[in-house]
Amino acid sequence: MRNVRFALLTIAVMAAVISGASSADVGVRQLPAPDVAVPDTVSPQMQAVIARPLPPFWNDHPKSAEEWKVLIARRADDIAATLPDLRQRLGVKVEPTTIGGVKVYPVTPESTSEVNRNRLLVHVHGGGYVFGPGESGTREAILMAGYGRIKIISVDYRMPPDFPYPAALDDAMAVWEITKTTDPKKTAIFGTSTGGGMTLAMVLRAKKEGLPLPAATAPGTPWADMTKTGDTYFTSEMLDNVLVSNDGWLGDAAKLYANGHDLKDPMLSPVYGDFAGFPPTILTSDTRDLFLSNTVRVHRKLRAAGVQAELHVFEGQSHAQYAADPYAPETKEHFGELTRFFDEHLAK
Amino acid sequence: MRNVRFALLTIAVMAAVISGASSADVGVRQLPAPDVAVPDTVSPQMQAVIARPLPPFWNDHPKSAEEWKVLIARRADDIAATLPDLRQRLGVKVEPTTIGGVKVYPVTPESTSEVNRNRLLVHVHGGGYVFGPGESGTREAILMAGYGRIKIISVDYRMPPDFPYPAALDDAMAVWEITKTTDPKKTAIFGTSTGGGMTLAMVLRAKKEGLPLPAATAPGTPWADMTKTGDTYFTSEMLDNVLVSNDGWLGDAAKLYANGHDLKDPMLSPVYGDFAGFPPTILTSDTRDLFLSNTVRVHRKLRAAGVQAELHVFEGQSHAQYAADPYAPETKEHFGELTRFFDEHLAK
Repeated sequence: MRNVRFALLTIAVMAAVISGASSADVGVRQLPAPDVAVPDTVSPQMQAVIARPLPPFWNDHPKSAEEWKVLIARRADDIAATLPDLRQRLGVKVEPTTIGGVKVYPVTPESTSEVNRNRLLVHVHGGGYVFGPGESGTREAILMAGYGRIKIISVDYRMPPDFPYPAALDDAMAVWEITKTTDPKKTAIFGTSTGGGMTLAMVLRAKKEGLPLPAATAPGTPWADMTKTGDTYFTSEMLDNVLVSNDGWLGDAAKLYANGHDLKDPMLSPVYGDFAGFPPTILTSDTRDLFLSNTVRVHRKLRAAGVQAELHVFEGQSHAQYAADPYAPETKEHFGELTRFFDEHLAK
Repeated sequence: MRNVRFALLTIAVMAAVISGASSADVGVRQLPAPDVAVPDTVSPQMQAVIARPLPPFWNDHPKSAEEWKVLIARRADDIAATLPDLRQRLGVKVEPTTIGGVKVYPVTPESTSEVNRNRLLVHVHGGGYVFGPGESGTREAILMAGYGRIKIISVDYRMPPDFPYPAALDDAMAVWEITKTTDPKKTAIFGTSTGGGMTLAMVLRAKKEGLPLPAATAPGTPWADMTKTGDTYFTSEMLDNVLVSNDGWLGDAAKLYANGHDLKDPMLSPVYGDFAGFPPTILTSDTRDLFLSNTVRVHRKLRAAGVQAELHVFEGQSHAQYAADPYAPETKEHFGELTRFFDEHLAK
């Protein structure tokens, strides 16, 4: 097989030379077609996660609201089916309610740690602004509550196709109004992917509206730029076995959510916002992550704005796989870092 | 061109299906052959650096000590030629001397900042344990002294082909004996690539020998694993336009230095060492860096050992390009982070 691939590569290189492509595209690097094995520098559990095939739906392009809803419901059912066992094993209780008219899931560990007794995390789930409705959006909050022994309110924000921008952010901000009655110094915001982008957008909007800022934030591999701008959108394409490519469902979801709004609006792509005055922030990504550039660009921009900002990058993993297997050592390590970070920055 | 490449990819995929390769290699990801453009998410200066072609010598395999020396001398001359102007523009003085019988280059800024008056950095240069002899090894120290306004001793350690392991480390440790007469709490160790690996190995050896530890270290994209182990050795192969591949001169240099010693010895591959008790450490890498895995594996291992360890990853750059253009904004940002970190952790 390697010989066949090498022969094809040789033909490709010859074709490149003949067509003179290298002179036409300055600095463009024409890469060979490599076989990339699962690294042995991660735990056996994480090796199994990294070895997973590409998601069967990664290149789905739903043609209508109905088709979107079918795909969304199927994914939600798959995730929701895993949650009773997860809640039970992590000793976490979840009971839906509403805050400010918005559906939320308070996620509570059986025993909150003494130091976290008066602290609260607001969670915004991931899923490209389309996936993760209802209970299926609470998975990351269950992990955080269980491993961090801290109370969480997970926001079940409205999403496309029925509710495009700014419904999701409006809902999250309505929940953030709880800081009128709770102490923001004891409160943080966190979330992964879309939830990471929303975490950043919520702080930008709180700044703009003169609302209290959280004491800390934890955007995990945030969807900070929805315009397919950033190097790893290209260098990790087809390597990342979670998002795979911006040209699959992901790019469609961006447009569906934006609904005609400029994707470079900082409320959609927060990397274009002003990070001055942001609270201490911990960012997490992975070496194969399509959003590694999103993450490091936000990190560098926070640092340039003088913000205390930590970066953690996990070996060999694709997008957000630091939470893929609830019991992998890397997962515990990730939630351990968040727990420590919140403990350092939230008032007691 | 894209169409030609796509057609070839299609043939390759068909060949893969026919040969049944996917069932034989569980988890192996067969990537297409992409064209990767220079990202526009970095400064114009850094775009020029990222657009550079692969180094002409990346796949050189010198067959004898003489051939190595020719290559080493040619590279050293190229770098040394740029240094008078660099010293002048950064206001830095370099005068060779010896410490403990080892050749060193004290690198001194015209005006040390008030806060750094009594502080000292020990610098170990990069170059795969073969490149960077004499003055050519002082480039990074000049940048650090100039931007950080701090005194530096750059170690001109002995190298292969004449002096394999442990000569380089012996020399660096002989210089570290200066901490018998200077205060180690006011001293840090730093270096990039091989110098990053040596920085970590020096601390491991100081621990083992009961010598004082530095107050901080700054291993830039360290050669922490010389065995081609770590995911980005594979995922960034041919993408990184500095190191390019472990199968070029780099892997040969590893064997030349090791001279029969086990490459997994922590004194050669410090990622296999015990990081308990390490001083605060700042690590730097890049998204296209062949050594990104080296860097993040060290970061995670330091964190697991309870060490205060910062990670910074630059967008779009290959190995150590945070210092490629002395005047790029990213270069100033990098040395600004190191300066701030040393200031936080070194006694006055």
